Amino acid sequence: MYKVVLDVMGGDLAPFSNLKGAELALKEIPELFLYLVGKEEILKDWEGKEKVKVIYTEEVVEMNESPSEAIKKKKKASIFTGLHLLKEGEAQAFISAGNSGAVVAGSIFILGRIEGVRRPAIATLLPTLKNPMVLIDAGANVDSKPCDLFQFGIMGSLFLEKIWNRSFPKIALLSIGEESGKGNLLVKKAHRLFSKSTLNYIGNIEGRDLFWGEVDVVVCDGFIGNICLKLSEGLAEVIINMLKQEVQKSFFSLLGFSLAKSALKNFKKKSDWREYGGAPLLGVKGGVIIAHGKSDAIAIKNAIKQAVNFIKIGLVKKLEIAIEKNLELLEETE
Amino acid sequence: MYKVVLDVMGGDLAPFSNLKGAELALKEIPELFLYLVGKEEILKDWEGKEKVKVIYTEEVVEMNESPSEAIKKKKKASIFTGLHLLKEGEAQAFISAGNSGAVVAGSIFILGRIEGVRRPAIATLLPTLKNPMVLIDAGANVDSKPCDLFQFGIMGSLFLEKIWNRSFPKIALLSIGEESGKGNLLVKKAHRLFSKSTLNYIGNIEGRDLFWGEVDVVVCDGFIGNICLKLSEGLAEVIINMLKQEVQKSFFSLLGFSLAKSALKNFKKKSDWREYGGAPLLGVKGGVIIAHGKSDAIAIKNAIKQAVNFIKIGLVKKLEIAIEKNLELLEETE
Repeated sequence: MYKVVLDVMGGDLAPFSNLKGAELALKEIPELFLYLVGKEEILKDWEGKEKVKVIYTEEVVEMNESPSEAIKKKKKASIFTGLHLLKEGEAQAFISAGNSGAVVAGSIFILGRIEGVRRPAIATLLPTLKNPMVLIDAGANVDSKPCDLFQFGIMGSLFLEKIWNRSFPKIALLSIGEESGKGNLLVKKAHRLFSKSTLNYIGNIEGRDLFWGEVDVVVCDGFIGNICLKLSEGLAEVIINMLKQEVQKSFFSLLGFSLAKSALKNFKKKSDWREYGGAPLLGVKGGVIIAHGKSDAIAIKNAIKQAVNFIKIGLVKKLEIAIEKNLELLEETE
Repeated sequence: MYKVVLDVMGGDLAPFSNLKGAELALKEIPELFLYLVGKEEILKDWEGKEKVKVIYTEEVVEMNESPSEAIKKKKKASIFTGLHLLKEGEAQAFISAGNSGAVVAGSIFILGRIEGVRRPAIATLLPTLKNPMVLIDAGANVDSKPCDLFQFGIMGSLFLEKIWNRSFPKIALLSIGEESGKGNLLVKKAHRLFSKSTLNYIGNIEGRDLFWGEVDVVVCDGFIGNICLKLSEGLAEVIINMLKQEVQKSFFSLLGFSLAKSALKNFKKKSDWREYGGAPLLGVKGGVIIAHGKSDAIAIKNAIKQAVNFIKIGLVKKLEIAIEKNLELLEETE
């Protein structure tokens, strides 16, 4: 049995979508055992169901609450209660679509970091013209050091290889020019580490080339990664919106637009983050998946599927080995 | 007469587009006097033309050449020869679509910085759902300090106000959350400076909200600004490309697409950087406009129009005053 904890309270569409997603996942994955953490009034109907254990808590971390405050004041919040189930070995993976800062802080505080990892990082899958790529760190850290970026590369690459079957993923540093001399101090120093390693590091990638699918793992500081991620989501929306505005100006192009609509739908599906089911926090001692705040039932179901894969493959153990193997290089270079 | 220098050799479509752009500008702007800098074989037909002076040089900085190397080894390159005309007071503004790193380095080295400015910055106009906004710094610097970001805000705001008639522009810091506590160390410190100033500072803006047009001036370090700029250009291309791919899959949606084409054309025009005619380098002692590397004749013409405005309004003088007015605040806070 793969034992996964779901934070029923987290996310803009919670708890309904989360529970619907849980239902879909239980139907689809026979080896799944789910811990559902949330308020009693919401979960009491689930009591006694097969392959489910409900855990009641009345505390919830709000979306805009400060993570450090929440850890101090809401010790029993669904996020922290869920993470404790991993810590105690009852379950092996945890999913929340709630306050991602609280998930990151809680995971580090409760589960702890993998030996040798200075900063855990969020690995987000993004669509490209070819295969999806991993952007790491998508926002767990700001003000990273060169050794952090190097470890992000190790972890993101292993994640893509093991969970998404991409063999020998190409890793690149996000920078302002392709030439290795171009970048800020952080990128230049990280470049030296990657160059000395045995990773499939191919150098820098520029913003303009991000979505063409030539690179598998894009490494950057979480401040930049988070801005890029949100900018991409926002810009895609704005472009579709602008096209619609233009199209509505004339009857003929409106007609044209409805005919092109099925194409638009396919395109949307292709760039649909829900397919990937959330982004793992890599570098902590447990499988932690951060689902999108707007997750619907499908997204939650896919996040659960990813969590099961995470356990099946034993990703935490594999990350431990990969990090350890590269510690010497870090020590030499520091 | 407004005296503008044009680097005839710079840009992917140079020299033809640059000269065509010069021709268009001369027709449109009666008070324009143009210095054309480039190779003799290209410019000899322009010799003796009214309101034009040609200046021959056989050296050109290549697109991928290191700026610092170029400054040392190609002292007479069209970029540096052009900037010297400003330094000597012969002309008041300079335009190049060539190696932007060389334009930045050359401007700082030859023209010098405005008194009190630590780092000049590139101010790029970007389309939004409403009015265009300024992104500053779009790539002149990496590893900026808080005082740099503050000065970028002062300069970007003044540029938008004076050249594009936006009254009391709203300034925001690009960050990972709207709350003022969110961001990296750089943004947090810059926030304190902006908060104490009399600028129309409204706080942080997230990546996702960038293109909705609620903010006029977006301030960030040049490493991030350049990545965001290129990412936006690249993503827009990829989305259009994906839509086309989808649309070509069926006859009906292909029909639909051709009907929607005029809408697409209008949309493209709306998001066309050529309309803005290049991005000024603010903070140096002279009007320096960096045109897009892919500039065609229209883009060059618009860059020349912007340069004329730059001179007409006396933007360098206005920037000097604004920077000086805020120096005390910087000293107090450091």
